[in-house]
This record gives sequence, C-alpha cells and structure tokens, in this order.
Amino acid sequence: MGTIDDRLAELGIEIPTPAAPVANYLGWVRTGNLVFTAGQVPLKDGEFMYQGIVGDTVSVEDATEAAKLCAINIIAQVKQACDGDLDRVKRVVKLVGFVNGVPGFGDQPKIINGASDMMVEVFGDKGKHARSAVGAGSLPINLSVEIEAVVEIE
Amino acid sequence: MGTIDDRLAELGIEIPTPAAPVANYLGWVRTGNLVFTAGQVPLKDGEFMYQGIVGDTVSVEDATEAAKLCAINIIAQVKQACDGDLDRVKRVVKLVGFVNGVPGFGDQPKIINGASDMMVEVFGDKGKHARSAVGAGSLPINLSVEIEAVVEIE
Amino acid sequence: MGTIDDRLAELGIEIPTPAAPVANYLGWVRTGNLVFTAGQVPLKDGEFMYQGIVGDTVSVEDATEAAKLCAINIIAQVKQACDGDLDRVKRVVKLVGFVNGVPGFGDQPKIINGASDMMVEVFGDKGKHARSAVGAGSLPINLSVEIEAVVEIE
Repeated sequence: MGTIDDRLAELGIEIPTPAAPVANYLGWVRTGNLVFTAGQVPLKDGEFMYQGIVGDTVSVEDATEAAKLCAINIIAQVKQACDGDLDRVKRVVKLVGFVNGVPGFGDQPKIINGASDMMVEVFGDKGKHARSAVGAGSLPINLSVEIEAVVEIE
Repeated sequence: MGTIDDRLAELGIEIPTPAAPVANYLGWVRTGNLVFTAGQVPLKDGEFMYQGIVGDTVSVEDATEAAKLCAINIIAQVKQACDGDLDRVKRVVKLVGFVNGVPGFGDQPKIINGASDMMVEVFGDKGKHARSAVGAGSLPINLSVEIEAVVEIE
Repeated sequence: MGTIDDRLAELGIEIPTPAAPVANYLGWVRTGNLVFTAGQVPLKDGEFMYQGIVGDTVSVEDATEAAKLCAINIIAQVKQACDGDLDRVKRVVKLVGFVNGVPGFGDQPKIINGASDMMVEVFGDKGKHARSAVGAGSLPINLSVEIEAVVEIE
C-alpha cells in the first residue's frame, strides 16, 4: 500500500471503484500529465445522495457532506487514472464546485470546503488547489452539489 | 479530404466557418497541444436558435438539438485551430455543458448527451471526453444551452 | 518596472496584493506553464463590492464594474504566480465568467466584457482569450460576478 492509501486508511475513507458513466463520456481523460475529471456527484454505494435545493429542502451541513462524497468520487476517478497508485498524484490543480442553491444563496464556499478540506487531508500540500465555488441554477437529477477537478499526475 | 471530413460527410454534418466573437475575446486559444474553446451556443446560419428556459418554454428534445448545434460550433472552432485539418484532433478532453433550466430541473445529462454523442460519432474513441453537465441560472440572450471544450490536437 | 507595469500605470490600474484564501485552497496553482486561478470576486481594499442579483437590485453597468474588479484580482493572482513580473505572461488562455442574474437574464456577455476588455488593454494581443459567460443560480455571499482564468506564463 502507498503513502496515500495509508493516509486514507487512517482517515477511514474508502475509495470506491469509480462509477462508469452511462453515456458517451468518461469519468476522466488524461492529456499530458493533466487528468480532467467529469463532474462528480454525491453517489454512494450506487445511490444518489442529497437531492434537493440548498436553502430550501437541503441544509448547508448536508450539502457539505454531499461535497465530501463528490471529493471521494473525484479521488476514485483519479485513482483509476493513476492505475490504482494515488502516490502518483503530483498536485490537485483545480476544483470547480457547483451548488444547487436558492436564488440569493451565498454559502457555496462553506459547502465546497467539504471537498477542499478532504483534498488537503488526503494529499497534504499536494492537495492544495485553486478553486471556484458557484451556484448552479439546477443540477442533474436535482442533486445538491457537483464538483469537477483538474489533477496533475506523474 | 481527411478521415474526419469523410465521416462528417457520411453523417451529413456540415461544419460552418466559425463565428468571430464580437468582443475582446476569441473563439479558441491554443496553449501547448491544448485548445480551449469559448463557450459555444446554438448558432446556425447566423441565427440564434432555441432561446428560452428548459422545463418552461423549451423541451428537453429541443434543448438536445441545441446541444448538437453547440457541438457543431465547437468542432468549427477546433477545425480553425487545426488549420482546417480535423484529423489533427488527438482527443476531445473535456466538455462543460450549461443548461438554462428551471429550478429543480434534472435532465441536464440527457441534453448534453446531444453534444457528447456527436463527439463520439465524429471522432470515434478520440471523441470520448470527460464531461460536466450543470444547470445555469441564465444564459446569454436567454439561449437554452452553452457548451465549452478542451481539445488536444497535434 | 516591466512593460506591463508601465501599461498598468498608464491605465491608472493598481494591482493589489492578492487576497489569501481563508480556507483550504489557494488563489492560483501552476502546472507546467499554465496557471489556474481560483474564482475571483469583486473584492477591493478588503471589501466585497457589488452584492446582489443583476436584473434585480444590481444594474448591468454596476455588474460590469464588478467584472473589472474580478479581472484586477485575476491579474493580482497571476502576478504572484509570476514572482511579481507580469511581463512573464505569455497568454491569457481562458476566462469563465459567472453572472448572478435573474432567470431569463441575457446580458452576461456585456458584463464579462468588463474583464475581457481589461485583459486586452493590459496585455494587448497576449490578453486575447477564449471565454465563456454564463449565468449562475447564485454566487458566494450574493456577489454579482465571479470569474476564473487559465493563463500561460513563461
């Protein structure tokens, strides 16, 4: 097991086999040393979690949990891009987080911190990324959060 | 004519001369082997198509047609970036699709499939990309779809 | 002082020390020759400007000023990535601009022109970028504009 696998075990985080997209796209594409992931959603054990609009039926706390699940699914895609060896992650470059909020909602950063914190917990300084947190007008199957990533690997 | 031109002819898809942006930006910029396109909209023969909000005045079927037009306009920009030779496309890396939907709308993936399917029809395995499909709160001149791309070329 | 610094002085634009993010992310990350910035907001002298929804309490003119502030903050991040020497900017590759507009709002491009025009005023042809302008459903602390960038540096 690698250093990052050890760290994940310490944190009690299990990285699932990444979900295979059900349409004509992929969970990640590598170009040069950059991996671009598809937008990841709060999918856990094959079930979509945290559906609904934040500030209406979903709380900031629940949406933060949703962001953590997105982060786990990003790591799952990147793990596959690294042939299973997360020690090959050189840098989490960018996260863009979309929050399905009511108009006027303003706590997107607090929610996306759920994903940012996890990246730094798991990858240390290599997990420190540039980030955008924005409000979506709506999200696939009314999920509350979707996050995409650019990651540099070796 | 190249292989991709033949494929486009087979599919009956005509790639227009790309629209020149009317402001201080460009339809595409190349950096290294990556081409970043501007957000492409459902423009056809100089006319904006499919204006309106999906789930309100625009159907999922019409928005899917809008996504196909966005894909054609992405290919038009990339063709220019390749000096007219689409056989130089090495990989469609990423699509981000924005759908102008009502709050709670959840069929963004179905709509953006219109663009994803076209990329794979035209470019085969090289067209398989990472993708995000999200809902916008609004879009330029109230168009129903906007899609941007990152493409690796030779 | 470099050429770009001279140009900024001519234009009367002061580039601030970039705001340090208050969470587990950074204002920019460099990978190869590309700098990805965090989403920048209309922050000026430590104060958030232009809060509210465009088409409701915020005018297109004010939102355009907000976009200019976002552009200044992008330049501030890029300056730090260049160790203070903006002459190392080779190309502004991409801007993605998010406008916090009412549903049906359609003037995102006019607003984001505030940032695009500034990039070209400051960097000349090197400032000409690919661009997406979209409507957000909401934005952090209800700000009216947020813009992120990809910039190639030497």
